[in-house]
Amino acid sequence: MSKADIGLIGLAVMGSNLALNIAEKGHTVAVHNRTTSRIDDFVATAKEQGLEEKVIPQADLKAFVDAVAKPRSIIIMVKAGGPVDDMIEQLLPMLDEGDAIIECGNSLYSDTQRRFDYLKPKGIGYLGVGVSGGEEGARHGPSIMVGGAKEQWHNAETVLKAISAKFNGEPCCAYLGEGGAGHFVKTIHNGIEYGDMQMIAEVYGVMRDGLGMEPKACAEVFRKWNQGPLNSYLIEITAHVLDAVDDETGKPLVELILDKAGQKGTGVWSAIAAQTLGVPATAIEGAVAARSISSRKDEREAAEKVYGARHAGKADISLEDLEKALLAGKIVSYAQGFAVMARASEENGWNLPLAEIAKIWRAGCIIRSRFLDQMSAAYQKTDTVNLLMVPDFIELMKQNHGALRKLVAEGALGEFPLICLSSALSYFDSYRQAQGTANLIQGQRDFFGAHGFEIVGRGKDLHGDWPSTLDN
Amino acid sequence: MSKADIGLIGLAVMGSNLALNIAEKGHTVAVHNRTTSRIDDFVATAKEQGLEEKVIPQADLKAFVDAVAKPRSIIIMVKAGGPVDDMIEQLLPMLDEGDAIIECGNSLYSDTQRRFDYLKPKGIGYLGVGVSGGEEGARHGPSIMVGGAKEQWHNAETVLKAISAKFNGEPCCAYLGEGGAGHFVKTIHNGIEYGDMQMIAEVYGVMRDGLGMEPKACAEVFRKWNQGPLNSYLIEITAHVLDAVDDETGKPLVELILDKAGQKGTGVWSAIAAQTLGVPATAIEGAVAARSISSRKDEREAAEKVYGARHAGKADISLEDLEKALLAGKIVSYAQGFAVMARASEENGWNLPLAEIAKIWRAGCIIRSRFLDQMSAAYQKTDTVNLLMVPDFIELMKQNHGALRKLVAEGALGEFPLICLSSALSYFDSYRQAQGTANLIQGQRDFFGAHGFEIVGRGKDLHGDWPSTLDN
Repeated sequence: MSKADIGLIGLAVMGSNLALNIAEKGHTVAVHNRTTSRIDDFVATAKEQGLEEKVIPQADLKAFVDAVAKPRSIIIMVKAGGPVDDMIEQLLPMLDEGDAIIECGNSLYSDTQRRFDYLKPKGIGYLGVGVSGGEEGARHGPSIMVGGAKEQWHNAETVLKAISAKFNGEPCCAYLGEGGAGHFVKTIHNGIEYGDMQMIAEVYGVMRDGLGMEPKACAEVFRKWNQGPLNSYLIEITAHVLDAVDDETGKPLVELILDKAGQKGTGVWSAIAAQTLGVPATAIEGAVAARSISSRKDEREAAEKVYGARHAGKADISLEDLEKALLAGKIVSYAQGFAVMARASEENGWNLPLAEIAKIWRAGCIIRSRFLDQMSAAYQKTDTVNLLMVPDFIELMKQNHGALRKLVAEGALGEFPLICLSSALSYFDSYRQAQGTANLIQGQRDFFGAHGFEIVGRGKDLHGDWPSTLDN
Repeated sequence: MSKADIGLIGLAVMGSNLALNIAEKGHTVAVHNRTTSRIDDFVATAKEQGLEEKVIPQADLKAFVDAVAKPRSIIIMVKAGGPVDDMIEQLLPMLDEGDAIIECGNSLYSDTQRRFDYLKPKGIGYLGVGVSGGEEGARHGPSIMVGGAKEQWHNAETVLKAISAKFNGEPCCAYLGEGGAGHFVKTIHNGIEYGDMQMIAEVYGVMRDGLGMEPKACAEVFRKWNQGPLNSYLIEITAHVLDAVDDETGKPLVELILDKAGQKGTGVWSAIAAQTLGVPATAIEGAVAARSISSRKDEREAAEKVYGARHAGKADISLEDLEKALLAGKIVSYAQGFAVMARASEENGWNLPLAEIAKIWRAGCIIRSRFLDQMSAAYQKTDTVNLLMVPDFIELMKQNHGALRKLVAEGALGEFPLICLSSALSYFDSYRQAQGTANLIQGQRDFFGAHGFEIVGRGKDLHGDWPSTLDN
């Protein structure tokens, strides 16, 4: 029997779909799952789809490993955390030098880095791979962010590129850097996704409460925006979500759905990474905060009783300005996310290719958009990291920040919460301000803690001659 | 020779000042330092201040330990991190069961928790103590936040309360909870301090750039505010900083100080703690972001060239509204900080006493204020955690959030960066909104990830019947 091109362990939905995707692209895949009934189910599905000839099922782990051609590439798709470490330990004695373990779950990048460091001296290449696109993406073409052992990446490159999404024929799959680089980029992808979704929700709130628009009318607007610069998967599905009608009541579904958002942790990971690296990511932080506040529905209900309902039907802003404001907020949010990646790259010696990252996000993943196509083109022409300083985006920002100002002002006066969009504006206004107000903060810090300040031309660590007695 | 009431290791400025403070309050203190010249210097200073009789200097660590009365209380004031662990290891063989190590540096609370857990089974009580008030505070009365071994706390209670600041005769020193509780509360204190300072800086920016006020005029306003509800140490020193004149040039000193703010990490620790606990702390995050952006002066200068200078002299807002806006922002920031502490308390089983924390922050520490006196009184009357829902503060917020709205709107339109103040307003507007917009987010999440949503009366984990083909 001929050997498989690649192996895959873990046949839950994501793993099965990836394996079917591999088989469909003409590569032989050996599959294994601890619960063997899952293997049978998978084989049945593969048969239904006419892909059984490309599948080598193996209930025995050793036989599974032996079924994969050397140097082996073995994808593991098990639960993040302990199960990944357990699987690595089980596989280790069965592998040969030069083989690779390719972990495609939603792992914390520092775990991936640790596993990479652990396996490297043993001669086993570890690849931590971020896969975005949900179940559909896994089956038909996800965006694939590869990090870890570069040598072994080349052994799996053909298969991973084959199963990835394509944008204008180019695969949305790239090697991004050593160690935890792939999972780090996936985490920031999700952080940016949080920001996109929250900003859309804020604009929807203004339409609903400030312009008195019904969901159908909102859907119409998002559909129109999807033809313009905001063209993206998230804008498109927003229109569908707003359009959906509940069968039971005939009411718009969105108005029945409880306004408590869940989160699975990658937003928080992004925010913590940004804080740890010392890079402001206020849009991601705002989006995480908004989800957290949303989950406290009881508290919000109690607070509304105390403070009274917000004004309604009072936002004085055009739909055109809402579109522009959303675009401006998006530019700031992506500027922050890419700045976090650039800093992480320096810190970890990853050499993350920013243009390439924008490129492989153009299709397959949740934040895919026309905007990312513009970004990848713009980053290819420059070494500038902060998107706010990339020529094409300077022009975009100049055309649109005025609308964001109008919206934030209307939100403040009209009592519409704009956590994410207002934080984007504040970041922009701080960032574009040559003379800030931290001189006062440095004066305060020197006053109470003798932390010192700088005067240009006179040096650092200077101190003021502050009064020693105070009233307080 | 009679034994010392307490021992202290580490005679840098903070340690020396604490030891002098102890001696001055009539307690005998044994002192030790690795570099023995520091001991000589300390003894000389103690003589100058007529305190030498209360001091037992010991260059030998064993002799130092023996000089302290049992059960021993030994304060260590060495550099945070490794040096603390090293000192613990050196002390361990010399201590007896029931003795206590009292670490008063700026340690990360998780390190303190680890040390507490390590020493507990050895019969040594570990106290992690947050001390706020800078060098002056250490010498004349700091705010002291005690966490760790409760039994040993009682041995040191008399001395620690004696050296602490007093507010209306009450000591600003309290036991707050086991393990890392004291250092955790100190961290959040610093996070709140970041927020206070940044909000003051933002208001100063509007005065300077939006109202065209000179530093002297700004100082006058802060002095006036210090007579009202904003009365606090930080408002008072802000007036002094704005008043200071540079000897060399005769110009206002604040205008010469470079606008690049430093930070030593506790702001970031607070933000990471809040994220880890899942509690929104957008004011702290905003303040950390602002300092970070301030430090990138080159980038800001480049950005201003590209985007052009901000408008100037254009803020249409009264000084009275600025005062009210600052008060409203402060309420939100403290609401967030205290919510973080309440959540940490649950998570770690600390039973943090919120009213007591507000009480011991009323004097000695950097954020001391009339506001904290109101807070401690208000928290004593309620079990409500979120300050926005505490009766006295509901009234305050109702009176002042209108002014915060005006300011945020002016800031947005006039291009004044208000990272912290605008995030405070957005938090408030999200928090007081019974019906939010997370219903749309849950719809989106179900669309692309089958995450499910809830419909009241129909259950959770419901799914929409979404279209399967899309353009994007």
